[in-house]
Amino acid sequence: MNAHLKEYSHRRYNILTGEWVLVSPHRTKRPWQGKQEDLAAEQRPAHDASCYLCPGNTRANGEKNPEYKDVFIFENDFAALQTDAPTFKVRDGLMIAESESGICKVVCFSPDHSKSLPDMAVEDIKKVVNAWQHEYKTLGDMEGINHVQIFENKGDVMGCSNPHPHGQIWSQSTIPNEVAKKDQQQKAYFEEKRSSLLGDYLEQELALNERIIFENKHFIVLVPFWAVWPYEAMIVPRHHLKNILEMDDDTCMNFAEAISVLTRKYDRLFNTSFPYSAGIHQSPTNGQNNEHWHWHMSFYPPLLRSATVKKFMVGYEMFGTPQRDITAESAAEMLKSL
Amino acid sequence: MNAHLKEYSHRRYNILTGEWVLVSPHRTKRPWQGKQEDLAAEQRPAHDASCYLCPGNTRANGEKNPEYKDVFIFENDFAALQTDAPTFKVRDGLMIAESESGICKVVCFSPDHSKSLPDMAVEDIKKVVNAWQHEYKTLGDMEGINHVQIFENKGDVMGCSNPHPHGQIWSQSTIPNEVAKKDQQQKAYFEEKRSSLLGDYLEQELALNERIIFENKHFIVLVPFWAVWPYEAMIVPRHHLKNILEMDDDTCMNFAEAISVLTRKYDRLFNTSFPYSAGIHQSPTNGQNNEHWHWHMSFYPPLLRSATVKKFMVGYEMFGTPQRDITAESAAEMLKSL
Ligand SMILES: O=P(O)(O)O[C@H]1O[C@H](CO)[C@@H](O)[C@H](O)[C@H]1O
Ligand SMILES: O=P(O)(O)O[C@H]1O[C@H](CO)[C@@H](O)[C@H](O)[C@H]1O
Repeated sequence: MNAHLKEYSHRRYNILTGEWVLVSPHRTKRPWQGKQEDLAAEQRPAHDASCYLCPGNTRANGEKNPEYKDVFIFENDFAALQTDAPTFKVRDGLMIAESESGICKVVCFSPDHSKSLPDMAVEDIKKVVNAWQHEYKTLGDMEGINHVQIFENKGDVMGCSNPHPHGQIWSQSTIPNEVAKKDQQQKAYFEEKRSSLLGDYLEQELALNERIIFENKHFIVLVPFWAVWPYEAMIVPRHHLKNILEMDDDTCMNFAEAISVLTRKYDRLFNTSFPYSAGIHQSPTNGQNNEHWHWHMSFYPPLLRSATVKKFMVGYEMFGTPQRDITAESAAEMLKSL
Repeated sequence: MNAHLKEYSHRRYNILTGEWVLVSPHRTKRPWQGKQEDLAAEQRPAHDASCYLCPGNTRANGEKNPEYKDVFIFENDFAALQTDAPTFKVRDGLMIAESESGICKVVCFSPDHSKSLPDMAVEDIKKVVNAWQHEYKTLGDMEGINHVQIFENKGDVMGCSNPHPHGQIWSQSTIPNEVAKKDQQQKAYFEEKRSSLLGDYLEQELALNERIIFENKHFIVLVPFWAVWPYEAMIVPRHHLKNILEMDDDTCMNFAEAISVLTRKYDRLFNTSFPYSAGIHQSPTNGQNNEHWHWHMSFYPPLLRSATVKKFMVGYEMFGTPQRDITAESAAEMLKSL
């Protein structure tokens, strides 16, 4: 790697979004008189009577959860997207709006309130993976659902409103901003080269072996060259699969293992239940061929220096460009070594 | 306004960035078992011996601050951008990077540690405005500085590492992501219509009078139609000025008043020292004509329901599209009424 990238402020290009990130490798030494996060509450019980996601409990809307044994999925009681929204368009000069309908679901990963993905057996994570496949298929096949976003917010510092292990799925009629960018970049590349953008990138990463954290038969776990969050990472299938339905059973098991390895490394990094937002980007369910898509799962964890000091994406980052203080290479090295 | 926008999930288009925001007007009723922020620490002293920004104190790098009386500016001791970075480009297959150099400054708004902008007299805010003008001019005229980003992070929840009233200026050789988007959108519009995009938008807002919070002779303060943050607002000059150097003395005074009115309303909203990131977007200093630019200052405050519950831009927002729970119109009404 160009040695300048270790020492001097520079920007890196994200091939998937077409946007830049500012990297300041020299900046970790600044003093911090700012906010310290509270440490995550200690041990949670396996069942919490006040949790609206635990088996057998009653939710805010009065419904009772079944005595579920592994994964449990229900429609979000306070969904951001409505199923019954009328279709409309506002085109009033420079005020442009239109209806957006969809279905939001909650995916409980385990009946055990005390667990999170890194505490679960790989076989149990695989059940979550299979549930994601089922939802992507069922929702994606519905009339008017052109995109299915699977994600998890972990930790209250990431806005998670309930510590019970769970993720969400928001499916909707239009293509979200971030997905539209990746769609465009992958499409342009595929049309020119008839080859997967991410696949070709993986080959380069494998040859360099500077940012790879873990590999198994079907997946590479790495810190992308253009990572924004301090310990951002990506799980990428080696082969050019456009969505998670293209995984066979063996591949699903490998994917579950990759999630397990990465999240356990995260927990060990600062010796805390490591917060993050994670999400799967894959082909939209808009009925198009989408052969340019190479699906992947990304993890955006906010912690920077310790269990209590996070990176803030504020001022400059909101008005300018995301900025990071450690290089992708040193983050990868740390995670690999754990 | 189309009545559907009050009731149903929809998306709105940001004319300045070309991106969308998802609006869920029905969603404010959901229960919150998530994170509660700590209330901002009570009264601060007018001078704090441990603060590295107070007059006469010694900073982390050993330099001593002067006994300044109003605005005090110095180069950031732990700058994200280096002035002396060598110029280089990395074009290694799909790994693309290049040097980024620049100058980062800290702008202390007042010697009084206990104050923030809403507590300051309009005349004193005007001194800050004049300092911004001076810095924009001086930095912008320098060789290799093609963009000057003026911003403030207020409150520890917005990553502010020191409560002393201050903002920052990061100036650099390339155009940041967010600025590039606005540059493109304004340019396309101006080339087609020979008229300012924001100017034409203001006319529509003035005619509708649904999102305007405050007006004086030279400025409109409003919640933009496409606002992302719950109480996001924008200060826009009525006339088509491309940057803050085009303000005369009277206009500067009006701008200071607009800042004062808006930030005082914010503090009254939840009866707390209201956190936000604020920034000025204006013409790049890249030597081009930039007549399509109409400068403006935006405020992105995170609080949603109270002084302790903020909106989290996480999971869906990071992987999809920003999402908001109250409409721009109801936020504007609240702020106007205070
Ligand atoms: O320079 P400060 O105030 O310590 O740092 C703050 O503002 C910077 C610019 O928005 C961010 O990069 C930092 O994450 C934030 O903590
Ligand atoms: O639905 P939850 O978990 O209550 O809410 C959380 O995730 C959502 C989707 O990322 C965000 O819109 C909310 O701001 C966040 O608090």
